[in-house]
Amino acid sequence: MTDKIFRVNMTDLSTSIEDIPADWAGLGGRGLTSTIVAAEVPPTCHPLGPNNKLVFAPGMLSGTAAANSGRLSCGSKSPLTGTIKECNAGGTAAQKLAKMGCKALIIEGQPQEDSWYSLHLTPDGVTLSKEEELIGKGNFAVIEGVEKRFSEKTGLLSIGQTGEMQMCSANISVKDPDSHIRSLGRGGLGAVMGSKKIKFIALDSGNAKVEIADMDAFRAANKIFSKALVGHPVSKALATYGTNVLVNIINEAGGFPTRNFTAGQFEGHEQISGETMHDLIVERGGKPKHGCHAGCVIQCSQIYNDLKGNYKTSGIEYESIWAMGADCTVDDLDKIAEMDHIMDDIGVDTIEIAVAFGVAMEGGELNFGDVDEMIRILKEEITHGTPLGRVIGSGAGNVGKTYGVTRVPVVKNQAIPAYDPRAIKGIGITYATSTQGADHTMGYTIATEILGAGGTADPLSKVGQVELSRNLQITTAAIDSTGMCLFIAFAALDETTCLPALIDMLNARFGISLTAEDVADLGKSILKTERAFNMAAGFTNLDDRLPEFFTLEPVAPHNAVWDFTDEEIDSFWDF
Amino acid sequence: MTDKIFRVNMTDLSTSIEDIPADWAGLGGRGLTSTIVAAEVPPTCHPLGPNNKLVFAPGMLSGTAAANSGRLSCGSKSPLTGTIKECNAGGTAAQKLAKMGCKALIIEGQPQEDSWYSLHLTPDGVTLSKEEELIGKGNFAVIEGVEKRFSEKTGLLSIGQTGEMQMCSANISVKDPDSHIRSLGRGGLGAVMGSKKIKFIALDSGNAKVEIADMDAFRAANKIFSKALVGHPVSKALATYGTNVLVNIINEAGGFPTRNFTAGQFEGHEQISGETMHDLIVERGGKPKHGCHAGCVIQCSQIYNDLKGNYKTSGIEYESIWAMGADCTVDDLDKIAEMDHIMDDIGVDTIEIAVAFGVAMEGGELNFGDVDEMIRILKEEITHGTPLGRVIGSGAGNVGKTYGVTRVPVVKNQAIPAYDPRAIKGIGITYATSTQGADHTMGYTIATEILGAGGTADPLSKVGQVELSRNLQITTAAIDSTGMCLFIAFAALDETTCLPALIDMLNARFGISLTAEDVADLGKSILKTERAFNMAAGFTNLDDRLPEFFTLEPVAPHNAVWDFTDEEIDSFWDF
Repeated sequence: MTDKIFRVNMTDLSTSIEDIPADWAGLGGRGLTSTIVAAEVPPTCHPLGPNNKLVFAPGMLSGTAAANSGRLSCGSKSPLTGTIKECNAGGTAAQKLAKMGCKALIIEGQPQEDSWYSLHLTPDGVTLSKEEELIGKGNFAVIEGVEKRFSEKTGLLSIGQTGEMQMCSANISVKDPDSHIRSLGRGGLGAVMGSKKIKFIALDSGNAKVEIADMDAFRAANKIFSKALVGHPVSKALATYGTNVLVNIINEAGGFPTRNFTAGQFEGHEQISGETMHDLIVERGGKPKHGCHAGCVIQCSQIYNDLKGNYKTSGIEYESIWAMGADCTVDDLDKIAEMDHIMDDIGVDTIEIAVAFGVAMEGGELNFGDVDEMIRILKEEITHGTPLGRVIGSGAGNVGKTYGVTRVPVVKNQAIPAYDPRAIKGIGITYATSTQGADHTMGYTIATEILGAGGTADPLSKVGQVELSRNLQITTAAIDSTGMCLFIAFAALDETTCLPALIDMLNARFGISLTAEDVADLGKSILKTERAFNMAAGFTNLDDRLPEFFTLEPVAPHNAVWDFTDEEIDSFWDF
Repeated sequence: MTDKIFRVNMTDLSTSIEDIPADWAGLGGRGLTSTIVAAEVPPTCHPLGPNNKLVFAPGMLSGTAAANSGRLSCGSKSPLTGTIKECNAGGTAAQKLAKMGCKALIIEGQPQEDSWYSLHLTPDGVTLSKEEELIGKGNFAVIEGVEKRFSEKTGLLSIGQTGEMQMCSANISVKDPDSHIRSLGRGGLGAVMGSKKIKFIALDSGNAKVEIADMDAFRAANKIFSKALVGHPVSKALATYGTNVLVNIINEAGGFPTRNFTAGQFEGHEQISGETMHDLIVERGGKPKHGCHAGCVIQCSQIYNDLKGNYKTSGIEYESIWAMGADCTVDDLDKIAEMDHIMDDIGVDTIEIAVAFGVAMEGGELNFGDVDEMIRILKEEITHGTPLGRVIGSGAGNVGKTYGVTRVPVVKNQAIPAYDPRAIKGIGITYATSTQGADHTMGYTIATEILGAGGTADPLSKVGQVELSRNLQITTAAIDSTGMCLFIAFAALDETTCLPALIDMLNARFGISLTAEDVADLGKSILKTERAFNMAAGFTNLDDRLPEFFTLEPVAPHNAVWDFTDEEIDSFWDF
């Protein structure tokens, strides 16, 4: 298929297929979504109004046989942060979009009347239909309904009830190969989809395929690339324990935020660790190793069954387990899996919601550790949009403002995830300077600070952390454009063959001749484009700061505080 | 008494009396509170944390016999807007503070433990006590309790339940000469007082008096000044109908925001107008004319009785009646008075809360016009800090975010009051550029646009509006420093004797020789100090903007939109 731009205008309910503008041709994934958002969305518009747009773009290698290339990017102006936003996730959508020649799907405008719609994309274009049957339903019901209506192989992007209600923690679900759920998780993009009145987007690529300019060169490079991935020790740990391998490691490092960031170690860490989870999964006939998209050779996902051996959830991540666990002082993995399942169904970011619970606990709305009340609130309040449900569903920052809490772990109003920036300082630079609000995936310094990939860095020292975060953020922006999973980074940092093989694949796919420098330049250019959007939206360097409490409150066991100066943080942007 | 700075540190529970630094000597009211906040509060601190401060300062002429000079300023970093904030109000506090020689009271720090405190100020200094009896009580009970404990003449600043709960709409109540309530209303300063754990501040000035350098000159100037005030036609209208004289006038102008700013005229305007209110008050034996502080010669306040002739509320303002009335489509004055009474008691900004109700109505939480539900929510939800109560109590912007509403009339997160900026354009410049968030009192262009004071300006035209707002904001900043009520502005704009007499009084009071130019320079300097604080807190010119919907949605009857360019708005600061 020749790649095209698919455009849907929800104001006049029109659709079109457009040629790709020359300066978008070399882009994909995050590079493309951020470029389109920066070009077409007025930075000061209301994120839920008619002037915002929602953009989906598969990565440059998505839809090919390249290992781990099945990530889909989604971009917009975020209703949570007010910044530009890009999320990416696995599942089958990226591959289907790429195969049908959809380089990007742009959804713009807003219906005048109060109807709901769905989209169905095929290689022939977009069909826009009114939707009634699946409105008010959770994502699992939507998957079932859409598979019945189209086919079991139909790809799917959907929002749950929270997206319909335009809550700032609402995510967009992506169907995985087993009809389970992956998530375009952060920043409330599900609310933007809800504001466009689109409940789901069904994807059928039929027999369409991605064209490869030089198939032999592509295959040769993919072989080297896959080998590098599979051979890295972190890949092996991820395949055994999932990302949850980190519970014991980060707890040991004293950077495991506990009880709404008032301590760095959690007494109940053993009960929620990757090791414990692995044994439980095996014991109950689940799968400790599972890929979120075809072609993944790392397989950090898993199938988690309940006590009776029935499917409960999949792809439950360290950051989700930390947030529901240590941050709310909950040490019951089954209850955490239950919450993960509910959140997948109603379509909310697990990190944002669970950190919001932690702040609500501090604000006195419920008690720390009261997991049954958390489950009740999820089911009865958030799902139905009661006032309490909406407060928590609007994220941690909103809870803090609503309850007058000062210890609110957010940057640019997005919840800080599972690594305490006082005890693991490099990640704090990523939280502070990321164009997207606090987000560990934007420059995962944990790789070096804690896991020793790509060198070493003392997590308690400021030395070298700005540079570490800068280099990783630049590289990540580029990787997020290729459709690659971020977990190629460990091999990319340590195996000299890995990145060259990735670049060889890009060149073989498109018949071009990128160099390593071109890729680094792409990463830099993406960050600068995103930053320029934010500046034009009213952000300044003063938004690149952690909350005041991190500088005022030392955290045990290291009694460390956040001690970067403004100048040190701002030097991040010297490139 | 020699003027001093009274300082209270709530972290170590110490108090001190300090000499006045030389560069604060010539200041009072807003000029002093903004100078102190800018000097001592880190602009990026959390407004409810230990680094924020709460500053009270009587005006330069407060405590003297100067007509209308009894305003008290309160400054801080606002938890609602994140900007610097100054509110001023009448009542007896300014005069008592001035008489006891308290040029400013600075409250800083934050107690470590969860106890509540009260302050008692006398000419001898500050007594800090633990408080239990009056915690959890509304302002009327606090007035009763404090008068019992000290005396009926004791002045009082207090917070209601909402201030204790640190809601962003919480105000600080100031007892008036009849033991009723005036309010330091906007921006959530009651939440800051709550964060300092101070329930009330009792004020006894005994026989202390303000020293006047040249009493004869002072008396002569005051005579001229009073005459100018009393003689102005707007003063007379205010004495008859209160500020609520504006309902019919602004409705007629098509700038009376109705149904959450979706129309510019309200069908039920007659039922809530100043004329109707005047007749009701007279009929029930209330007072249509009443001063909020000793020495007021305008007397725009009133005593509003219920159907049985019992006291219900006092000083009910046009903006409050508009907000509870037209904005929520309520046309029942008695119900509005009931809500005004409840809001005085629990201590919230009537404008912020009522506009928040309008947004909640648009978000579907309650129906437009459902005044009984509004009263229920005030009594049962906001008073007790339920989730819904906290959402509305956190202000209109918070409701908008929590309910995913895009039509949210706020600037810098503070609710826009009773004049639609599409149909009365000059006031929109004040909303946009004010250092304090949307606030009509910061540069009351209505005086000229609608009431013809100080010239004329076509409210539907952009011509001259930036200059009008600029001149009024500069003058207002200076007036807010003198302790004068803003309503001297009508006379000041039209009577050539008025401003010179005011300056003569300042010179006679302090034995100085200010010129009119000095006073204008003071106003400019205050605005620039406030703006510099905001910039250092992370604000930019892009925060000087009205919400997007004002540019997208024409408002009847004029079908006007907000159409100032960014450059036009930003030119406000060219001085």
